[in-house]
Amino acid sequence: MVNDCNGEHSATACSARLRNVGDALYVIGGKWKLRIIIALSDGHMRFNELQRILDGISAKVLSNELKDLEINGFVKRSVNTGTPVVVTYEPTGYTSSLKEVLQALGNWGEQHREKLRMEGRQAS
Amino acid sequence: MVNDCNGEHSATACSARLRNVGDALYVIGGKWKLRIIIALSDGHMRFNELQRILDGISAKVLSNELKDLEINGFVKRSVNTGTPVVVTYEPTGYTSSLKEVLQALGNWGEQHREKLRMEGRQAS
Repeated sequence: MVNDCNGEHSATACSARLRNVGDALYVIGGKWKLRIIIALSDGHMRFNELQRILDGISAKVLSNELKDLEINGFVKRSVNTGTPVVVTYEPTGYTSSLKEVLQALGNWGEQHREKLRMEGRQAS
Repeated sequence: MVNDCNGEHSATACSARLRNVGDALYVIGGKWKLRIIIALSDGHMRFNELQRILDGISAKVLSNELKDLEINGFVKRSVNTGTPVVVTYEPTGYTSSLKEVLQALGNWGEQHREKLRMEGRQAS
């Protein structure tokens, strides 16, 4: 793949790859979105649970990210109007379209950490 | 995959996935790194070419991103001390470890754009 941009038609192939990856990053890039999606994959979940699991995210950022994810069809927000009112977030069917992305990133992160360990460095 | 965090051992599996994807994003996350890697895959390339291809990146950001990528072993910087001095950047062998990540993200970006097109919306 590293050479997909070489040879004939290189400019076209390269710009298509740039566009595709760019479009993906526009929607699911950033520090938190994919992590929120992973955490949500544990089923119905509440705001406070998400914030606890996603160590380091502020309430404001989590709230904005959940709204973005809802707009883009990855999150379903439900308000159960009992007493007390309970708001839950869950992944949608479209979330599963990210399976390969999450798998590839997870595999890569794991093997990269292993590489750093072998080299005697810290991952982060 | 969306249910990997469910059931028994869910906390452990979920936190491993969060950690792996988090580690990956720590190294190759952000708006530009993967796009720079795609552009570099066209072989030896100069700073100005990269900036032109990566429409919208400032020289300062590109310079910092290239340094980060060099530190993490994705980019080899060469200085050819002729007249004029020519600095080139090229991907390393380790860059190809990102093959699946780039493929998954590119495929997803393409199909997401197609989904938005079918829904009559703009991708970005």
